[in-house]
Amino acid sequence: MKLATYKDGSRDGQLIVVSRDLSQAHYANGIATRMQQVLDDWGFVSPQLDELYTLLNHGKLRHAFNFEPKQCIAPLPRAYQWANGSAFINHVELALQARGAEVPESFYVDPLMYQGGSDDFLGPCEPARFVSEAMGIDFEAEVAVITGDVAMGASPEQALEGVRLLVLANDWSLRNLIPAELAKGFGFFQSNPATAFSPVAVTPDELGEAWAKGRVDLSLQSMWNGRKVGQCEAGPEMTFHFGRLIAHIAKTRQVRAGSIVGSGPVSNKDWKNGYSCITEKRAIETIQDGAPKTEFMKFGDSIRIEMKGRDGLSVFGAIDQDVVSLHEEQ
Amino acid sequence: MKLATYKDGSRDGQLIVVSRDLSQAHYANGIATRMQQVLDDWGFVSPQLDELYTLLNHGKLRHAFNFEPKQCIAPLPRAYQWANGSAFINHVELALQARGAEVPESFYVDPLMYQGGSDDFLGPCEPARFVSEAMGIDFEAEVAVITGDVAMGASPEQALEGVRLLVLANDWSLRNLIPAELAKGFGFFQSNPATAFSPVAVTPDELGEAWAKGRVDLSLQSMWNGRKVGQCEAGPEMTFHFGRLIAHIAKTRQVRAGSIVGSGPVSNKDWKNGYSCITEKRAIETIQDGAPKTEFMKFGDSIRIEMKGRDGLSVFGAIDQDVVSLHEEQ
Repeated sequence: MKLATYKDGSRDGQLIVVSRDLSQAHYANGIATRMQQVLDDWGFVSPQLDELYTLLNHGKLRHAFNFEPKQCIAPLPRAYQWANGSAFINHVELALQARGAEVPESFYVDPLMYQGGSDDFLGPCEPARFVSEAMGIDFEAEVAVITGDVAMGASPEQALEGVRLLVLANDWSLRNLIPAELAKGFGFFQSNPATAFSPVAVTPDELGEAWAKGRVDLSLQSMWNGRKVGQCEAGPEMTFHFGRLIAHIAKTRQVRAGSIVGSGPVSNKDWKNGYSCITEKRAIETIQDGAPKTEFMKFGDSIRIEMKGRDGLSVFGAIDQDVVSLHEEQ
Repeated sequence: MKLATYKDGSRDGQLIVVSRDLSQAHYANGIATRMQQVLDDWGFVSPQLDELYTLLNHGKLRHAFNFEPKQCIAPLPRAYQWANGSAFINHVELALQARGAEVPESFYVDPLMYQGGSDDFLGPCEPARFVSEAMGIDFEAEVAVITGDVAMGASPEQALEGVRLLVLANDWSLRNLIPAELAKGFGFFQSNPATAFSPVAVTPDELGEAWAKGRVDLSLQSMWNGRKVGQCEAGPEMTFHFGRLIAHIAKTRQVRAGSIVGSGPVSNKDWKNGYSCITEKRAIETIQDGAPKTEFMKFGDSIRIEMKGRDGLSVFGAIDQDVVSLHEEQ
């Protein structure tokens, strides 16, 4: 099943069901109006949406309309939790290696994770607004899951059962704010502005065999200003699967329905696959040549993030954003 | 105006209006059913609630009932943001001094703040459940505000205009998990389990002249196992006022309605005022005697946090929680 949220002027938007090929859509009213409602009462609501989805795919709905990703806000336009892991340890290895630091042993058994802001997400085609280019504007292409309720103390296997939906995320980062912020010891804050999400959220069964062992075994493409800079495999090198990441949250608290849990930037050992964030390219340049060469993003730049299924079709639709000055007219 | 949320079996509970003296209450249906609705549309909804509040205070509502704090869940049982500052720099000074470290100059001009989990808050009288006493269970008594929308780039003065409601918070912390977690560099995560809030949220005008310069000029009492351990002044020594804290969030992103922003533990230079978290008492013991003596909380312990107005009446009602093993029958 594929779900999305259309703009309607309200804070939570309007829930729609989207056809498998992303061509058609249908309002879900009569069943649920907002995405969070579905997650709050998944067992009751999702089978009804699934029926609508089947009819839509068979072209049997009179009031279906053409699906326009530009009319989407984030599937969950605001959420009660956005916890982002750094589950591709290769990304961490590169970052530390570029600084001449060792990767602590514990990083291979205990996931890195931070709590992100979740009150104001960006839609897939909304401009990303920043105060200044000097902050070091970087994209981060990743995969994320949206959960149901998961009890405190859940095992990774139990936690994995809590996965309800998958999305792509662009976790915008302000790299030049990070060193001072981390030095304060309280983690990322101002360096993590609003995150953007793919137009469509999909149930795991939509991935078929590509959803395996808590990972998405497909490649994630990043196009920066129209040039392909990354085609990274999101499956085999994900050190900690999504069940591990959710269980990390659940170690000391309940995880409640509608929590979004991210993989961190998808990253591969083979540099030929490119990168899912500029900071990784800069780490590679530093390791190779002693200094980074690629600059961070400028106002006017664009970034497009997309994942295709084994049938060659876009699974989630594309995140396709422009970088814009906060002071430019809206 | 005083508002609270009653248990009704749903995730968001039922909005009620509570009388100034906390003796009576009335359902707000017909106006709004959930606290977040009020914050989403403050300008339209709050005047209607205020009328109801006036009638309630004058004993003019036929369907008023006795207010029972034990029937409350958190005013916002789940929120889109919980950003917690450490605005009382004395707390930071003590913590660092006990470790033999200096306070960086920047800490006096740039607030410390972390993003907390906000998907699962505790009600004022709900037991706080933990996996193990060995995690170093500590309370943190603080003041927090709930905001409306605040634009990216807002000044501290503009941000202060975004304060809609005030609450007390008990930001539970697992002290023995903190060193390893901070060493990872991503900030607090498992060391910050679910936070509890006071029964009642109040508009700033309820504080009269005690709401001044973005601070609450009243004292916050902490009773641990029935013994008063803290009576700390929440006003004059708050280094960064709430407008400063909100503006810190707004530096690189929009702050959206229903964001909760905390002061961090209320802390005074005069040690006779006691403490608002055990870790501060242990820091003082370390500075005085070279080692901490007071142990963290045990299963069966209780903590009561309350603030009285200049009229001697409880402003927010009390947070009154027992510490319970996760494995004890619910």
